[in-house]
Parts: sequence; C-alpha cells; structure tokens
Amino acid sequence: MSLVRLTIKGISYSQTQNGAYALLLSELDGERQLPIVIGAFEAQSIAIALEKDIKPPRPLTHDLFKTFADRFDIQVKQVIIHKLVDGVFYSSLICERDKIEEIIDARTSDAIALALRFNAPIFTYENILDKAGIYLKPEQQTPEEKSTSADFIFDEDQEDTEEEQSSASKPKGDFAHKSITQLEKELEEAVKKEDYEKAARLRDEISKRQ
Amino acid sequence: MSLVRLTIKGISYSQTQNGAYALLLSELDGERQLPIVIGAFEAQSIAIALEKDIKPPRPLTHDLFKTFADRFDIQVKQVIIHKLVDGVFYSSLICERDKIEEIIDARTSDAIALALRFNAPIFTYENILDKAGIYLKPEQQTPEEKSTSADFIFDEDQEDTEEEQSSASKPKGDFAHKSITQLEKELEEAVKKEDYEKAARLRDEISKRQ
Repeated sequence: MSLVRLTIKGISYSQTQNGAYALLLSELDGERQLPIVIGAFEAQSIAIALEKDIKPPRPLTHDLFKTFADRFDIQVKQVIIHKLVDGVFYSSLICERDKIEEIIDARTSDAIALALRFNAPIFTYENILDKAGIYLKPEQQTPEEKSTSADFIFDEDQEDTEEEQSSASKPKGDFAHKSITQLEKELEEAVKKEDYEKAARLRDEISKRQ
Repeated sequence: MSLVRLTIKGISYSQTQNGAYALLLSELDGERQLPIVIGAFEAQSIAIALEKDIKPPRPLTHDLFKTFADRFDIQVKQVIIHKLVDGVFYSSLICERDKIEEIIDARTSDAIALALRFNAPIFTYENILDKAGIYLKPEQQTPEEKSTSADFIFDEDQEDTEEEQSSASKPKGDFAHKSITQLEKELEEAVKKEDYEKAARLRDEISKRQ
C-alpha cells in the first residue's frame, strides 16, 4: 500500500461539528483533500506553528514537546496517518534517536502539530485518501469553507472530538442546511430553555448569512 | 531559598477569569494554598490524570508526551514552580536520561499535567508561596470554591491565560459578589444583546445559588 504525501492547506471552522475545527490536508501531487475534525486547542497550536512569525509568550504544550525532544536529541522524522476506523483517524509519529527508531501512536491533531515543529513530512495511505478524501474545486469553497490559518476566533471548547471524518457520510446535525426562519425559531427556543451555548452557535450561523 | 512541596488539591472554575479554571495546589506540610489560573484544555488533562480510572479513548497530548518519554527512557523527576513575574507562574521540568539531567522551561499547567503522569513531586520556593499563597480555611470554601477534579463542564475555551495568579490582588470582574436579583437582571440584558456566552455563565452562577 503506497504512501501519499500530504501538505497542510489550512484550518476552517467545522461544518459538521459545532465548536470544532476542520484541518484540511491536501495531496501534494494530486487533487484530493482530507478534512479532519480537530479540537480548538490543537487548532490553535497548529495555526500558531503555521504562522512562523507568531511566538506565543509562553511555550504551548507542543512547543514544550519540541524543546524536550531537542534536548534529548530525538527527532520526529515523519508522521503517518495510517488508519481510519469509525470515522477516527489514527496517526503514528516515526521518531529517531541515535539511529534507533520508535513508532508512537498519536491523535492526528497532535501528530500534525508536532510535524510542523519538526519539519517532518506527513503521509497517509492511498486507501485512506480513497475512502475519506474529497475533491474540492476552488469555486466550491464557500465563505464557510475558507481556509484560514491564524485568523479565526476561538470561542468554544468542546470535548475530545477524536479527529473525526468531516465528510458527507456523517449525519449532519448542524445548522448549515437550515433556513434563516428555522434558525431564528430554534434560537428563540434555545433562549427559552437557557441553552445559551446553542443560542450562541445559532446566532453565529445567522450572522454568517447576513 | 528553600523548596516547599506541594500537592494538588483540585480544580475549580476560576472566579477571576471567565472561562478559565483555577488549579489549587496546597502546601504539603502547611496551610497555604496556591491558586493558579489555567486554560480548559490543561484543566481537562489534569482532571483526567487525577481520575486514575478514566482513560480517554485516544491519548491526550500529555499522554503522548509520557509515552514518548518512556520509549526513550526519559523520566521527569520533579517539577519546580520557580518564578512568579507579573502574575505569571513559570515552571521547570527536571528531567533525566541515563543519569544526565536537563532542566526545561514550561508553563505551570503543562508541568503539573506531566508531573501527575510521571508521579513527579511538585515544589515551589518559599518566597513564591509567601507572595501568592493564600490561607483557605475549610469554612471559607464556598460552593464556588469547591475543588472538583473531573466533575466540571467544559463549555468555553479561552485564549492562553498564561497561568495567572488568581489572588485577590487581581480585579474581580466576576459574578460571585453579585446578588441573585442583579444576576438575573444582567442575564436579561445579556440575552437581549445576544451575548449568550455571558448568559451561560450567569445562568450557571444563578443555579449554583439555588
């Protein structure tokens, strides 16, 4: 099974999971893209690593990891997204110290955040790209799909999203397909029920349409 | 300057910073407590490490760090909260491999999250505890101050809080000192302004009082 090299295209707000982000990877020598749902903390860490001139005042967890590895002469040589099961992407860090290799299981968001810091190439297998890759033509990129790296607002946390597939095969419980009237109705109900977290998301979806 | 050993008392919702958590450390052989403001992701990582029977489905970043260190025979021997400047606590990880020691700068939240996983003792200096430690008598622990480890809701993310001091010297913009009537009034206004994030916090504060 051949390895396919990927690059990081960007991060956008997830369409399928409220409060999560979609990391978009793309095939280096091809047209397929791999969207991976990740959490806010990981999205922030990746965005900061992408914007090379932003240095946070205190080291983020992935920065600490890098410093730690450097001090002990350990490199992360590559990252492989090697498995996709039940919508969750599994990655391996291929590490090396003193010519001895270690392969370590990791969440894909951590693996990418580290790959950036170690300048390690990212790969996946052909069958994963077959199964979960999508073709995104430029004109298909709606404002909601736009890939931004550091320009996005972290306004919500969510529990571990387990890097789910954000493809169309997942049931859409989101708001993107509802009409404004329906959204406004749901907003009124959410406020009545004091579900202000949901109200915030509905408010944001409504304002995107305006 | 002598080192003072600390233990982790628990985590509660921060009173001084909306959306952040307060990690409460306490002097092992004394009565002073050290409250440190941390972010949601770090709070979750610490809470999960405290609840030893909870194992997340995929390794968190700090779990990955531990696995990585184990594979390369590196131990984190101790954590020292060694500096407090402008309200920010700075920590060091004292690590060792093959009898060679390395001292690595870290955010205090990362350091504690790792200390738990490595069973490494946590220390600080006498002057830091002098400066930032507080005496919290049992009867002073109001419901808002209760230390819970894993029983709390992650409903908000916030930008890097830089582990600020959560002591009384910081201006209190919080709700703990307002009456129920005032909170309900502010809740109504927040809903009118569509500030649902604030409405959620007010709702939670009100329900704590009931």
